[in-house]
Amino acid sequence: MTSQKPRVVIIGAGFAGVEAAKKLGKHGVNVLLIDRHNYHTFIPMLYQVATAILYPHQIIYPLRRLLRDLPTVNFLQGNVRKIDFNNQIICADNVAIDYNYLIIATGSQSQFLGVTGAPENSFPMRSLTDAIAIRNQVLSRFEQAAKVTDEDEKRRLLTFVIVGGGATGVELAGSLNELIHSALSKDYPTLNIDTARVILVQSGDRLFPSYPQKLGKYTEKWLLRHGVKVHLNSKVSKVTPEAVYLEDNTAIFTDTVIWTAGVLAATPETKQSVKTAAKEKFLVEQTLQLCGHKNIYGVGDVSYVDNQEEQLNGVAQEAIQQGKTAADNILRQIRGASPKSFSYFNKGRLAIIAKHAGVGKIGKFPIKGFVAWFLWLEVHLLYLPGIRNRLGVLFNWLKYYFFSEGATRIIISTAKSENLPVSSEK
Amino acid sequence: MTSQKPRVVIIGAGFAGVEAAKKLGKHGVNVLLIDRHNYHTFIPMLYQVATAILYPHQIIYPLRRLLRDLPTVNFLQGNVRKIDFNNQIICADNVAIDYNYLIIATGSQSQFLGVTGAPENSFPMRSLTDAIAIRNQVLSRFEQAAKVTDEDEKRRLLTFVIVGGGATGVELAGSLNELIHSALSKDYPTLNIDTARVILVQSGDRLFPSYPQKLGKYTEKWLLRHGVKVHLNSKVSKVTPEAVYLEDNTAIFTDTVIWTAGVLAATPETKQSVKTAAKEKFLVEQTLQLCGHKNIYGVGDVSYVDNQEEQLNGVAQEAIQQGKTAADNILRQIRGASPKSFSYFNKGRLAIIAKHAGVGKIGKFPIKGFVAWFLWLEVHLLYLPGIRNRLGVLFNWLKYYFFSEGATRIIISTAKSENLPVSSEK
Repeated sequence: MTSQKPRVVIIGAGFAGVEAAKKLGKHGVNVLLIDRHNYHTFIPMLYQVATAILYPHQIIYPLRRLLRDLPTVNFLQGNVRKIDFNNQIICADNVAIDYNYLIIATGSQSQFLGVTGAPENSFPMRSLTDAIAIRNQVLSRFEQAAKVTDEDEKRRLLTFVIVGGGATGVELAGSLNELIHSALSKDYPTLNIDTARVILVQSGDRLFPSYPQKLGKYTEKWLLRHGVKVHLNSKVSKVTPEAVYLEDNTAIFTDTVIWTAGVLAATPETKQSVKTAAKEKFLVEQTLQLCGHKNIYGVGDVSYVDNQEEQLNGVAQEAIQQGKTAADNILRQIRGASPKSFSYFNKGRLAIIAKHAGVGKIGKFPIKGFVAWFLWLEVHLLYLPGIRNRLGVLFNWLKYYFFSEGATRIIISTAKSENLPVSSEK
Repeated sequence: MTSQKPRVVIIGAGFAGVEAAKKLGKHGVNVLLIDRHNYHTFIPMLYQVATAILYPHQIIYPLRRLLRDLPTVNFLQGNVRKIDFNNQIICADNVAIDYNYLIIATGSQSQFLGVTGAPENSFPMRSLTDAIAIRNQVLSRFEQAAKVTDEDEKRRLLTFVIVGGGATGVELAGSLNELIHSALSKDYPTLNIDTARVILVQSGDRLFPSYPQKLGKYTEKWLLRHGVKVHLNSKVSKVTPEAVYLEDNTAIFTDTVIWTAGVLAATPETKQSVKTAAKEKFLVEQTLQLCGHKNIYGVGDVSYVDNQEEQLNGVAQEAIQQGKTAADNILRQIRGASPKSFSYFNKGRLAIIAKHAGVGKIGKFPIKGFVAWFLWLEVHLLYLPGIRNRLGVLFNWLKYYFFSEGATRIIISTAKSENLPVSSEK
């Protein structure tokens, strides 16, 4: 990288970071993209990996492949330890990297809302690894249940509790319920499938709080009709390895608690203090510039736009558009122009409950049912990076749609090695 | 399961165990198949997962799918802790299972030949998890190397040592060398790819000791010509996190040692002592019955056939034929006939070095080069279970053949969760 031309460092290869890198790269700007993974994850489809509809590799895209045809963009896999604004240096692992412009796109993390035992005893659903861990957990609970004779223990093993009634929670609940009553009921002929339960716990008084009220009601009805138990106005007070406890002292005995409730900005450590907003987000100007730092941008879930006209919900579209704006503004600054304000163009939102059942909002118009479901598939197939991925996903969706068979239901141990005799393996 | 009809328990769902289960199931015999995984692994293709030609799910087959159309065959995922021959009970995890007939098909495990540091500091290549771990290791060494500036460290990170000059070692060495000089050289434009080295260490005086001499020579020449360093007559004396040491005190500095050298039977623990042969294998009669136990069979890598006329090499074909014979003999015993002796029909053997280069032996005739390579692909595609797998593998092979692009080169962390801000993740 030449020292003449300004260098832009982007931390985080989510929707915002990748979009910014591509835009700057197309204009021949020197870019270094940093992420702790060597791939970009298509988060909206994580739940389909967790429920064995899709293969893990189908919803990710390797970053070095993505950047191959952008010669001025380089990639570094690493964890950013600290940022020093004054000296314009970031420390990634043991490497010190200087920058002229910096885009912080480090996204968000789970927030366990101070619930005792939640961090240790529940599964988050934010990364590909999380999704695989959930798939392994669900499948191995069924293997366990096939072994035990005690009915209560069997019931406990086959009870799956999802905390959080937002899009992630609902999509996971609906899809998991479908998996159990289609493929798994065939895989486990010796199990009485009615023993298995999916329970959705929501603190608020309705599902999909960020959608129009009637869509929440529709979703709730749909889930109940298909056997998913929905607890509204229920806060989780404690999670143990054996059960999850609600504030009204109900105890739900389970081996599997999936946590989709709280969210917190995943801000990198900075040498100088930064103005923050709710959920520990970095406060940024309307131009997405970090308050008091003209050459630093905060985009996506990590930032909060100061007095923004529209409330953002942390969906992919927002991150993509912010990434684009940050790149545009840096290009403007490079040629001496002043950055422009970000304004979000809301194309609408969609979420899936199950086969033929979705909800959404296009502009101001709420939609539901088959239309919303079909639109979701269209839109996500369209945005998924990589032709190979699109074809593979389409194939799996068709397989799932017609034969209720998605991806291979495989439990992959995460041990470094299993080089042990059968008898001595724990 | 009715107590009237005899029950056959099969431990291990490798080639031998699955073959026996299918055969007995087709005859309506009550069978319980036990394995620690919920899938059967097509071991001969493991190296193609380790070198990112294939996806993990493409070389496995879920056992419950495999057994769905055999109503008398049940599956249990678990680890066999102990076998009590006298009471005809095996203990799998906490479950006690009784049997009338038992087939032990628990296969083999790596044997580190007492080399100091080998178990802790080298990667075995025997399970799907092992193959994925190797893929992650190779790819992340390249990511590391792209970060370091010190040339010696870079060289160390990009040095990959494979111990063992048998089929697994050679196939892995050739394939890894190909991966490095095709896809990885494109993925890492900032790295000088000639820094990367694949080194094959073999204790004997030639590669493929179980093949005709000239094939070993051919293989050695081929590997050398393509940049793989081959150490013959070299025993490993020590493995540390930084290097591998040979008995002549050569030190090869590396972060990655893959161990394919020794092998040992993976025998389950038994309450009563069992006659064993070399490599701790259970000694079995010509009928594959465990010496002194008429209702117990030992098949595949776990057993050694007493004064067998042909020396077996632990390849899939042998296991498949032994599994069939054991099933046949149990069927004979059930109807009151006496078991028959096992005799191996050698269809031949094949191994791949790299594109267009293979070696093999059909009957008594050694073959090499393009023909052997092409035959290998044919035969393995034919034996791979599952049409979906065959299609997927064929697709990846063509992709790899024409574009040197196989599976997605993705480094999947094996942590339960990565729900951490970028800055604080180790």
